[in-house]
Parts: sequence; structure tokens; C-alpha cells
Amino acid sequence: MTDSPHRSGCPINLAVEVFGDKWSLIVLRDMMFGNRRHFREVLTQSLEGIASNILADRLKRLMDDGMISRADDPTHRQKAIYSLTEKSIALVPVFAQLGAWGRNWMPATEELSARSELLEHGGPIMWECFMSELRNIHLGAEHKGPSILEELQHAYEEAVARMRNEEEGEQTLSPPA
Amino acid sequence: MTDSPHRSGCPINLAVEVFGDKWSLIVLRDMMFGNRRHFREVLTQSLEGIASNILADRLKRLMDDGMISRADDPTHRQKAIYSLTEKSIALVPVFAQLGAWGRNWMPATEELSARSELLEHGGPIMWECFMSELRNIHLGAEHKGPSILEELQHAYEEAVARMRNEEEGEQTLSPPA
Repeated sequence: MTDSPHRSGCPINLAVEVFGDKWSLIVLRDMMFGNRRHFREVLTQSLEGIASNILADRLKRLMDDGMISRADDPTHRQKAIYSLTEKSIALVPVFAQLGAWGRNWMPATEELSARSELLEHGGPIMWECFMSELRNIHLGAEHKGPSILEELQHAYEEAVARMRNEEEGEQTLSPPA
Repeated sequence: MTDSPHRSGCPINLAVEVFGDKWSLIVLRDMMFGNRRHFREVLTQSLEGIASNILADRLKRLMDDGMISRADDPTHRQKAIYSLTEKSIALVPVFAQLGAWGRNWMPATEELSARSELLEHGGPIMWECFMSELRNIHLGAEHKGPSILEELQHAYEEAVARMRNEEEGEQTLSPPA
């Protein structure tokens, strides 16, 4: 009937068409929450061990879909820097809800859940502030207000330290002094 | 280090592992918003044209992941009825945000956006009520309060009628009386 490239005009389907695969949201997550902007950073710091050819393919697709942009990095000759666009920054509420679901219904680790928990509890006001900060980092827009990225990082580090203390506590308890 | 079957313990990754593919969320969407509970209903009423073997595979995976359950339908001999579980009913906020994103950033049609728009604007209070209704329909729990499914269906039908009127208006206008 139409020559639309899409399976249907349903908004859920259109979202699935863009990032309904095993890696696109992982790459966007690392750019958004880890501020990884160079190919090698995303590749070598990947928790899930993304392969080089898959990463290259996903970056290309995400560019074709307008989710990221690519530019020469003025501070690194021969290096490209990738940035989020408005379209992917608008995924912050989706990430917040996906993280909340994964934390509640899947065996997420406490350290890796700390950021998700903070983002869920911060609600729409924190999400807006985070989107404003991402516009500053990735698009050069002005940002007023606190750094949500720093708050998220702090929550993660606190959780790591808490886990470490608990482990040490267990170790010193086993042979009582 | 561990023998976990998961790529990482990150809640976003764990969500992507369960439904990060082209069809799982489409099947869950049709069960949730269209109340399609039999194999043939999901298959023949699929807007996106899911293939029979893919649907069978996805239903099996969703069962393995605890997202749906399968039982004999007492009203149809030889037919199985599929139900959402608590784990998939908990995806309502994810669907609300995915729909909002798809509506705002992709070429979603007005008819198919009407439900998503209502769900977005209804916010967490409507989502909770919808989840309670889904627990009633799929799990037999008690539900007090309005039917969100009916409200969503009504919004869709209104949008269809509005589109039809606009088309007819354009047609009667072209050759002026």
C-alpha cells in the first residue's frame, strides 16, 4: 500500500526497529552513562565483550538512524569522536524504566544496579536534568544545574565500596580474633 | 569467573538479553494491548506480519524466561491460551516510554499513536491501574477501578474516525459544490 521501509506505523514497533537487537542499547548505554566516545573505549571497556566487527556495524546503523553522530576529534589526530543526538538523549526515560525492570526482575548485581536505582528514584525531574547535561556534553548546549553523571558515578562507587567492606567483614569474621 | 549465563549483571543488559530482538516486544505488545491470547490470533492479526515459525520460537523463549505462561483453554478444546506473568506486566512503564519515544521521534501513524499518547499522558497512576487490570485478565486477580484497556481502545477508535472524517472532508472539498 505504501512504500514505507517500516513494518508498521506503531510507535512501539518503530522503536523496536531502531534498537531491537542485542547490542544497540548497550552501545548507547556506554556512550550515555560511561561517556565513552571513541571506538576503542567502547570496545575495550565493554562489560559484555562486544566484538569489533559488531561494534563497527552497530555504530554505522546508529548513525544511519540518526541516533549518533561522528566527527573528527580535535584533541586526537586520526581519531573519530561519537556523540549522542537529541533523538538518543530522548531515550533517558526508556533507560530509566528498562533499568528499573532489570533490577527488579533479573539477577542484576548490586554494584551495577546502583546507578539504575538512583535514576529510577530521581524520576522525571532528574531525567530532565540528565538530558540537559547530555545535551551539554554531546551537543555543546548550556547546562545549568547539578551533574547527574557525577551523582550516578558516586552512587556506583559507594556501592562498590559497600560490597568490598561486606566481603572484608565476612573474611575477618570467619577466623574470630 | 562465574558460571552465570548472562553477559553481565547490568540491569539494562539483562533487559536487553530477554527482549532485545525484533519480535519479543511485538508479541508481548499484542498480548498486552490487544489481548491476543491464542497462537492463531497473534499470528493472523499481526500488523507487522510475524511468521509462524518465528512466533513459535518467541513464545517458547518468552516462556523459558518467565514472561508468559501457557495453559489449556477451557473454552477451546485443543487450543492453548497464553497469559502474561507479573514479570511481563511489570513492563507497562517500559512500553509507555518506548511508545512515547517512537511517537515523538519516528514516523508513527496518528491512529496507532493514540493509545501510546493516552498512556504517556496518564502517567504512573494510569500505568498502575492498567497493571492491576492486566493482573485481573491474565492472572485472575481482583481489579477495582476503570478499564484502561477500554479507554485505550476508545482513543484508538476516535483517532480512526477522526482520520476518516478528514479524508472524507478532503474528498468533498476537492470538487467544490
